[in-house]
Amino acid sequence: MGNTFGKIFRVTTFGESHGKGIGVVIDGCPPNISLNLDFIEYELQRRKPGQSKLTTRRNENEVFQILSGYFEGKTTGSPLTFWIENQDAKSKDYEHLKTAYRPSHADYTYHMKYGNYDYRGGGRSSARETAARVIAGAVAKQILTPLGIQIYAWVSQVGNIKLSKSYSEIDFHLIESNPVRCPDMKMAELMEAEILLVKKRGDSIGGVVSAVILNVPVGLGEPVFDKLSADLAKAMLSIHASKGFEYGSGFRGVEMYGSEHNDIFYVENQQIKTQTNYSGGIQGGISNGMPIHFRVAFKPVATILKKQISIDHDGNEIMLEGKGRHDPCVVPRAVPIVEAMTAITILDHLLRYQCYKNLFKSL
Amino acid sequence: MGNTFGKIFRVTTFGESHGKGIGVVIDGCPPNISLNLDFIEYELQRRKPGQSKLTTRRNENEVFQILSGYFEGKTTGSPLTFWIENQDAKSKDYEHLKTAYRPSHADYTYHMKYGNYDYRGGGRSSARETAARVIAGAVAKQILTPLGIQIYAWVSQVGNIKLSKSYSEIDFHLIESNPVRCPDMKMAELMEAEILLVKKRGDSIGGVVSAVILNVPVGLGEPVFDKLSADLAKAMLSIHASKGFEYGSGFRGVEMYGSEHNDIFYVENQQIKTQTNYSGGIQGGISNGMPIHFRVAFKPVATILKKQISIDHDGNEIMLEGKGRHDPCVVPRAVPIVEAMTAITILDHLLRYQCYKNLFKSL
Amino acid sequence: MGNTFGKIFRVTTFGESHGKGIGVVIDGCPPNISLNLDFIEYELQRRKPGQSKLTTRRNENEVFQILSGYFEGKTTGSPLTFWIENQDAKSKDYEHLKTAYRPSHADYTYHMKYGNYDYRGGGRSSARETAARVIAGAVAKQILTPLGIQIYAWVSQVGNIKLSKSYSEIDFHLIESNPVRCPDMKMAELMEAEILLVKKRGDSIGGVVSAVILNVPVGLGEPVFDKLSADLAKAMLSIHASKGFEYGSGFRGVEMYGSEHNDIFYVENQQIKTQTNYSGGIQGGISNGMPIHFRVAFKPVATILKKQISIDHDGNEIMLEGKGRHDPCVVPRAVPIVEAMTAITILDHLLRYQCYKNLFKSL
Amino acid sequence: MGNTFGKIFRVTTFGESHGKGIGVVIDGCPPNISLNLDFIEYELQRRKPGQSKLTTRRNENEVFQILSGYFEGKTTGSPLTFWIENQDAKSKDYEHLKTAYRPSHADYTYHMKYGNYDYRGGGRSSARETAARVIAGAVAKQILTPLGIQIYAWVSQVGNIKLSKSYSEIDFHLIESNPVRCPDMKMAELMEAEILLVKKRGDSIGGVVSAVILNVPVGLGEPVFDKLSADLAKAMLSIHASKGFEYGSGFRGVEMYGSEHNDIFYVENQQIKTQTNYSGGIQGGISNGMPIHFRVAFKPVATILKKQISIDHDGNEIMLEGKGRHDPCVVPRAVPIVEAMTAITILDHLLRYQCYKNLFKSL
Repeated sequence: MGNTFGKIFRVTTFGESHGKGIGVVIDGCPPNISLNLDFIEYELQRRKPGQSKLTTRRNENEVFQILSGYFEGKTTGSPLTFWIENQDAKSKDYEHLKTAYRPSHADYTYHMKYGNYDYRGGGRSSARETAARVIAGAVAKQILTPLGIQIYAWVSQVGNIKLSKSYSEIDFHLIESNPVRCPDMKMAELMEAEILLVKKRGDSIGGVVSAVILNVPVGLGEPVFDKLSADLAKAMLSIHASKGFEYGSGFRGVEMYGSEHNDIFYVENQQIKTQTNYSGGIQGGISNGMPIHFRVAFKPVATILKKQISIDHDGNEIMLEGKGRHDPCVVPRAVPIVEAMTAITILDHLLRYQCYKNLFKSL
Repeated sequence: MGNTFGKIFRVTTFGESHGKGIGVVIDGCPPNISLNLDFIEYELQRRKPGQSKLTTRRNENEVFQILSGYFEGKTTGSPLTFWIENQDAKSKDYEHLKTAYRPSHADYTYHMKYGNYDYRGGGRSSARETAARVIAGAVAKQILTPLGIQIYAWVSQVGNIKLSKSYSEIDFHLIESNPVRCPDMKMAELMEAEILLVKKRGDSIGGVVSAVILNVPVGLGEPVFDKLSADLAKAMLSIHASKGFEYGSGFRGVEMYGSEHNDIFYVENQQIKTQTNYSGGIQGGISNGMPIHFRVAFKPVATILKKQISIDHDGNEIMLEGKGRHDPCVVPRAVPIVEAMTAITILDHLLRYQCYKNLFKSL
Repeated sequence: MGNTFGKIFRVTTFGESHGKGIGVVIDGCPPNISLNLDFIEYELQRRKPGQSKLTTRRNENEVFQILSGYFEGKTTGSPLTFWIENQDAKSKDYEHLKTAYRPSHADYTYHMKYGNYDYRGGGRSSARETAARVIAGAVAKQILTPLGIQIYAWVSQVGNIKLSKSYSEIDFHLIESNPVRCPDMKMAELMEAEILLVKKRGDSIGGVVSAVILNVPVGLGEPVFDKLSADLAKAMLSIHASKGFEYGSGFRGVEMYGSEHNDIFYVENQQIKTQTNYSGGIQGGISNGMPIHFRVAFKPVATILKKQISIDHDGNEIMLEGKGRHDPCVVPRAVPIVEAMTAITILDHLLRYQCYKNLFKSL
Repeated sequence: MGNTFGKIFRVTTFGESHGKGIGVVIDGCPPNISLNLDFIEYELQRRKPGQSKLTTRRNENEVFQILSGYFEGKTTGSPLTFWIENQDAKSKDYEHLKTAYRPSHADYTYHMKYGNYDYRGGGRSSARETAARVIAGAVAKQILTPLGIQIYAWVSQVGNIKLSKSYSEIDFHLIESNPVRCPDMKMAELMEAEILLVKKRGDSIGGVVSAVILNVPVGLGEPVFDKLSADLAKAMLSIHASKGFEYGSGFRGVEMYGSEHNDIFYVENQQIKTQTNYSGGIQGGISNGMPIHFRVAFKPVATILKKQISIDHDGNEIMLEGKGRHDPCVVPRAVPIVEAMTAITILDHLLRYQCYKNLFKSL
């Protein structure tokens, strides 16, 4: 019962990896938005497996349909539903896993919690579900972009190869210029080499996705619990394989002194800004108009082709050998997913803020 | 409108730092729980300022009253409300801040969002609000403890002084043995010295709180959005001054290979366990019965006694000099708050799981 | 953004009358329920137009698909999604209404609220949406029935023809024996004659649906706001064309004295019962184990074939002449819809009650 | 866990009849509202027992305090909390009821549901809880009134004495001119006589409260489930002793033909209106700008002074004799409660509508 995200722009996803398909209902999408369907397709392509030699060969032909909420080229304000039928879903690849609990997968916990398990590629627990999020994010982006709000995510670390540039030094145009989605060509090459090496060994490796949101108006975030930072953290930790979230100075900030860390205010062109941005664009849980920047950690994906010991449903030791088609490193494809969850979170808070923003002005 | 946390065990806090007081309504508290009020008092004392020379001298006499939901020594199942009247609230300390935006505080964002600002100690944005969370957490703990679920948090880093022990090496009895709440006496001494040094300089320093939850039953967490990890992340990032969250292998896990990182299952005493616990007790967003462990980053608190440049409400540059009573390092007092938010999150998920857990067994 | 009903068993409907189809996502459906798909089909047939000469001739071939949440013949605990593709949707019938506001329809209010209007049969405002509710209700019934909970609804009034029998005098087997769904053959004949007469005149007529829920366990309902009576009222008033709800003694009870109206307790077979049931099975918002009975008023449907004056989008007076295929009286088809919303509401409250029911027993 | 009403303007009540007091937290109250505290006091006085010989003699001295969310004479946008300490609560009056289940009260259902029972005046199930609703309603009214939205409720029936005037014939100034709150002096006298007669006999009698909301903007209500009519129904059925709700033509409308019942549109002063208002100001669940009018049925209150047979907790037959102080007829005091729940519902929907109303205009 936790398949809905958001309070106003409410995103509910449904569907399984190897079932009929994957879908999403958006309740609370503002009406009269002309959707650029090609952009949604483009975003799906970015998330899609099989984009390059770095990703799984599963050939998902991401053809989506709009099932409801769209009339004469515009959203109606009624539930906006998208549906992608599953194709090329080789369930047979998973027959040998029918009674296995794969290490660090959700097989065991799903089985225990629900009393059943969809062994076909993880069923509901599969990262395939994120295709639905990417669609919702692509809708949200189309509402945010005309308001000037821009979201960029990129790969800033693969294994121990780190891009040390701050968000302000990134040339966002470079993100899509290489299959790793690292906006620094030299680092991208190193990362790519590392991923290919890991792939060759039948292993996997983790990474970090960094993100920045530009031109967020002052005032988004609902303390004390629905702080913008808290909802972004939840959004990111709800993504498959993510293990950590930090914003602004994050974990490194703990080593700083307050006198260094405090962001000094100043006024430029009648706008209040801060000289540094260790706050990460959020103070007291509310956006302060500066760029919001954060980082998300992703573990090495659990599916590897190397042999592993595990147990079956009866607790007997078994030997697993990876089959199926999987990514050696999830972060290049996680980039559009991080962006999508960011867009959904920001739009939801923007709409929440509308509730009283205009009312109190008129009273 | 974001002042409620939880879906079943719903915690709503209210009140301001220098208003009449701070309170909490818990709607959805199970009935017939005999509360140990001394334990609630004890937890409040742990959070209280002025416990040692490490913390602010504000002498909050944390006398709480139960306003509702408690009859003949037991919870009734109706809203359980607690109230702490503010005492020793020296609002005068803040008069000079009436028109100032303090750097890295919530003054500016609250003022912009709400069109007003309670300059007296930050009003609603003050960490004083967490007293209400500690009470709710102390109630939740009293329900979790008889079920065997134990929660421990401790300080694992102050500035660049790090305790490198894993959760399994911690002697939990040592946590309360020193004012830093670091369960390693040598490290505690170093941390204490660092905090006193920082205090002397009128500065502040950040830190990390680590936590572990023992004996969580398998099955808590509601994918795909309300994963246990996602809700813990939200809970932690909703705490004042927190900047990051990681669980299991966290950010360090990104440098590992899948073949190292995967937690191999085995059976011991008819229980399924894992040899390592990089998953942090959560797989696919659902607890797997292993200890849940995570870390929370806290920034150096924004209030320092050193002089700082800032601006006033009209954008004019001003010089700020810290007054008031504040902690040079927030993490020792953050320990009970992290525990409280953990207890609230775990109990909420435990109650959510009850909804169908028993039903489907009987069908 | 109001397209979800329920707190635990969460039903979200989507789709339009003359769009691609109608669907429903159920998040929070208990896992491992073997669904009888024929029963779902049967319920859809009961709601379907064109069942008899009393209802519209629109030939909806209600073929539903399960899109997600169902594996190997059982619910999985993940979102359970159903989809009915629209067929025989004669949008052309509505071309002449493109710029008209039909009296007592939702054309005007939808247009004003959303800034757009789906003139094809009312779009989202069409009663076609209730097909999705009937599916969700058919799922809920299949969980409630094995627990002994039974739901019956029937037509108790058409125009001024009233069935004066109390719920305890009804032979539920007769409900489906006639097209009116009135469990009294004589009254059913009179009602049928009235409906046919009204139809002949190109007019419409209102009616009342009565309902009873048997064997509801004591304890369902969450005061003070989510009383079982309050949530049933909301459920019923959310149905198209409904204008009123009363339970137990209802509006007639206002004329009674307390000494008559009070339901006297007694014990029978170690069960506490009441001699009368003016309370309608709900006391203080919580079920008391007695049959829950209530009545729902439905207005004469707005679509009539008679000529009517109205206005167009520019405010000009126009003359409307009814086309399309519509019911002269909605109540026979409202019977399964009332049952469906009842089942959804009862199951949601049953699941909510599970949250702490078992927990507090074990503490 | 059902003690919160509303999605944006979220009202949570707490407290018991004979506990420490009654309170309410409003989360989502717009900031910068200057509250007229005298008006809140006035509304509380209208609800208060002991106003006249018609109502109970319990002398509740309704002194409320604001605990939070109010600074320098204005709401801050943080949780706004009110508290009324209980005084003159004669718990001893209830000692003899310690083990009794009073007929048609909530004693039995609360005891069964929660496993405990506050015998002192019904505890949480007491109508005393509505004082908290009246406060929240008085806040909501102060936001609605400057926007031109007016809410009036009055007694239209006591026992079988009915005021047959439509809402458009009511002189709202007369409502408060008599203790029955019936805006027709002759009917008021008859009603008063009936209530006094019933009181003398130690009995009770039911009644109907009618209400109208003027100047509601077009567009409030969120189909398909959160229709304005559905949320009003829930609001009204959540009030103690209410048994039914109808709006517009209501139950009488079922006897009408569509050709009579349809509200014909026309244009006056560039505003779209309807000639009749059987729709009750709501079409398709959305306000259409016409007056919203509805009726709420209240049963004869369960507490009577006459002797009654009942059972105790062990199922033994007992004889009850009424003590305590109670109303023979609840409707005069229900008037401000109906108004309060109406104001809360309308404001919540107004705020919900703000979310996208302004956004889609600017896109």
